[in-house]
Amino acid sequence: MQTGVKPRIGIIGTGAIGGFYGVMLARAGFDVHFLLRSEFGAVVEKGLRVESAVHGPLQLDPVQAYRSATDMPPCDWLLVGAKTTSNADLAPAIVQAAADGAKVLLLQNGLDVEDDLRPLLPESLHLLGGLCLVCVHRVGPGVIAHQALGSVNIGYHSGSCGDQAGRMTIVEEAVGLFRTAGIDSQAMPDLRQARWQKLVWNVPYNGLSVLLGASTTPLMADSGSRGLIQALMGEVVRGAQACGHYVEPGYADYLFAMTEKMPDYWPSMYHDYSHGRALELEAIYGRPLASARAAGCELPKIEALYQALVFMDRRNR
Amino acid sequence: MQTGVKPRIGIIGTGAIGGFYGVMLARAGFDVHFLLRSEFGAVVEKGLRVESAVHGPLQLDPVQAYRSATDMPPCDWLLVGAKTTSNADLAPAIVQAAADGAKVLLLQNGLDVEDDLRPLLPESLHLLGGLCLVCVHRVGPGVIAHQALGSVNIGYHSGSCGDQAGRMTIVEEAVGLFRTAGIDSQAMPDLRQARWQKLVWNVPYNGLSVLLGASTTPLMADSGSRGLIQALMGEVVRGAQACGHYVEPGYADYLFAMTEKMPDYWPSMYHDYSHGRALELEAIYGRPLASARAAGCELPKIEALYQALVFMDRRNR
Repeated sequence: MQTGVKPRIGIIGTGAIGGFYGVMLARAGFDVHFLLRSEFGAVVEKGLRVESAVHGPLQLDPVQAYRSATDMPPCDWLLVGAKTTSNADLAPAIVQAAADGAKVLLLQNGLDVEDDLRPLLPESLHLLGGLCLVCVHRVGPGVIAHQALGSVNIGYHSGSCGDQAGRMTIVEEAVGLFRTAGIDSQAMPDLRQARWQKLVWNVPYNGLSVLLGASTTPLMADSGSRGLIQALMGEVVRGAQACGHYVEPGYADYLFAMTEKMPDYWPSMYHDYSHGRALELEAIYGRPLASARAAGCELPKIEALYQALVFMDRRNR
Repeated sequence: MQTGVKPRIGIIGTGAIGGFYGVMLARAGFDVHFLLRSEFGAVVEKGLRVESAVHGPLQLDPVQAYRSATDMPPCDWLLVGAKTTSNADLAPAIVQAAADGAKVLLLQNGLDVEDDLRPLLPESLHLLGGLCLVCVHRVGPGVIAHQALGSVNIGYHSGSCGDQAGRMTIVEEAVGLFRTAGIDSQAMPDLRQARWQKLVWNVPYNGLSVLLGASTTPLMADSGSRGLIQALMGEVVRGAQACGHYVEPGYADYLFAMTEKMPDYWPSMYHDYSHGRALELEAIYGRPLASARAAGCELPKIEALYQALVFMDRRNR
């Protein structure tokens, strides 16, 4: 955590994730700048609003909002909450808004989501990944619903920092930003392992919400879907282990029990599907399947789910 | 095949399957009697009509139609085209309409579909199973669309016939009925093997039509669903082999290629789903999975499909 002057933070892609964390950080006194596209006008006019079941209603108004990255001041931290499918397209905006030696944090799910972006960034920029365990969704222009949870686990991906100690210093700095804003955050020594762990939740719930048109409560209430969720979780754990990553015993059971206690929730992939947007199938299914297969491990139920979702995604657009 | 007097045939459950084969047999000169429920009035008034893309429009009028099995004459053959989920409920009607030593032929898909019915029939009745490779569906009261194919493969299940030669004589008699009516038919020495073989088609196409809300043409046009169909077919073949049944090499490829040449088709499970009827999940998924598992063989993609369909079936009713 820096002392003295608080770092300047840029939010690239102010959807539910970027908007929620941006508002939380701004309320904690950070200098936060939001890059917006279609919602720019609404946010300038009415500010950003988070209807939080945890923190109550949060309003940020005025918002330091921008239509173009060329108008943004140089930022020390850039938080990217856009879809993984658009990472490469966002590279010019990220480079434009980055201060020298800036840190770019992808708040995204899935495996290797940094890989499309990394070659498009200068070596001097640090690239990190953040796994958000949070129930948020956009309810209208500049309005975000926060139903539950909020933690962010962070790991270093790549950049000019060669040694593990230096990398962890940067990761701890990111952890400090979130903790200052009242958000639980952990430093993850191995980003790829953290991404695999997060898949234990994302693989079953994101895909089944689309495939079965069902939110978490009905999925957790039926013996068929419960069995399928547990089987999919088990396959993710097997895949992670085959790729050499440690997964705490009982971790899948913990996520399963946590989901039973959550308010009814529609995962982000369902929102993407219902709005006709591209699904993040490669990040959440295709790459993990390919990694596990390269390690000699077949994950047949995940593959079946992936193949069904590929069909649905193509038909949907 | 009997010579002289043609056997009397009763159709129990005059849906698409019972109606189609009943009309074909009646047109061939057999004495066919139809047990009907909700469509009785329409069939008495307007007859039975098959809109066949193969044989042209076929009309049977008047129809020997009955509201109750107690009014039917004793039948030598009883063809059951109802859903497997209602077999036990149909037992009293079957027993009522059966002549001494009658043969009961279940024209149904799935494994062990005879098992619920057998204990409810007297030992003197022969029970047979028939696998129909036919694209038919009901389009209105007394009106059936026949799009393509039509063959029936028949095997002996159980009854007073102890030896294989006697059983095959009865099976050949059934084959002769259909062939006389211009329908391709084969005698199957092993009914369970024949039921497993038919599952190679039913497992992928029936379930995916419900899960993905798609008929055969779009399912065969997308790489995701094609891969899933082929993987599901491969698992059925593995399950059959684990249970000790021979499956001809290339049989799955043959069915896959055949489906590509078929007119666009909605499998029967889709029609059941869209009408809010119970899906035949135990016959087509639950029992094959249990049999394979008992033989030490896991079929994970079929199990995933089954679990998803269990959820959809419960929500649908």
